[in-house]
Amino acid sequence: MTKPSSAIETLIDMMARLPGLGPRSARRAVLYLVRKRGQLLGPLAAAMAEVAQTARECVSCGNITTGELCPICTDPRRQNGMLCVVEDVGDLWAMERTGAFVGRYHVLGGTLSALDDVGPEELGLPRLERRITDENVTEVILALNTTMDGLTTAHYVADLLEGRVRITSLAQGVPVGGELDYLDDGTIGAALKARRDL
Amino acid sequence: MTKPSSAIETLIDMMARLPGLGPRSARRAVLYLVRKRGQLLGPLAAAMAEVAQTARECVSCGNITTGELCPICTDPRRQNGMLCVVEDVGDLWAMERTGAFVGRYHVLGGTLSALDDVGPEELGLPRLERRITDENVTEVILALNTTMDGLTTAHYVADLLEGRVRITSLAQGVPVGGELDYLDDGTIGAALKARRDL
Ligand SMILES: [Zn+2]
Ligand SMILES: [Zn+2]
Repeated sequence: MTKPSSAIETLIDMMARLPGLGPRSARRAVLYLVRKRGQLLGPLAAAMAEVAQTARECVSCGNITTGELCPICTDPRRQNGMLCVVEDVGDLWAMERTGAFVGRYHVLGGTLSALDDVGPEELGLPRLERRITDENVTEVILALNTTMDGLTTAHYVADLLEGRVRITSLAQGVPVGGELDYLDDGTIGAALKARRDL
Repeated sequence: MTKPSSAIETLIDMMARLPGLGPRSARRAVLYLVRKRGQLLGPLAAAMAEVAQTARECVSCGNITTGELCPICTDPRRQNGMLCVVEDVGDLWAMERTGAFVGRYHVLGGTLSALDDVGPEELGLPRLERRITDENVTEVILALNTTMDGLTTAHYVADLLEGRVRITSLAQGVPVGGELDYLDDGTIGAALKARRDL
């Protein structure tokens, strides 16, 4: 067996590390890219290089962005005083796709977990408390996944902020054990509209 | 709804065009890449740029390579006089993974098809005929997919080369309607060993 050109093999190995792709689908994707190397592979390489150089976390909300503050934090049309707390950026994107939320976000970047040794500081909860004062927040919507760790985290945040802001969570409608990023936009939108006080 | 940063959105749109990825898996892949932007996204961008700039078709066999001739055509350990004819580079890679074939390849880049208006010239069949003379080929193994177009093409090539070389095809063992790239290595290897004269 003769090895393929090392540059192509390296590319296949890297692509196989992406979620949802294995060695076989990575080979198919690379073959497709090589066939469309003018149209797609070159532009894709450039887009990746640009994102690799410019992508960073929004210093305010934790969203992925290319500036210091993300487009949501700087958008003057977004409603002030309302923060939606999510586990990760994928969940923020899922909320945004519904178009149902007009406030701003706070991305925890995970959940409280005794097992993984993640504490309030790692989740930026002191930063959340500062935002509530600085941005005159009156409502915090907890849009965490309904997993055990998500529920634990929701209770912790609710206790932490009790008496300082209105605290709500997404309504029943999010299936127990379900992850936000896998839900259809309608379900998320309906759950947001029917959100209840904790 | 506030649009995500355009560089990230562009990247998601491009990734969604890869086979096996849709919008949802493209978002997950990009999110994963952004999280690993130092470790994976930067190197992946560089690997893609290199392949985009250097990848080309081997002038002899049609394999994808980074030089004028591919590593298989230039490998002195490969057996002379034996050519394996495949539809595309994915099939060549599938054959190579079995480690069962020691000769060289000829990639047609498709099949004869009345519908798509693909003729012998488009498939490089005159080039195949020249190779048979120039490289003193004594056996041509037809390893085409067992689809209607693949079978039509195999018959055409067999007629074209009749009396000039031994012409064999992969043995029964390749399921009818099956595509080489989806088979396990053992099946392909066994079919190659039990190849029969046409
Ligand atoms: Zn932000
Ligand atoms: Zn070659």
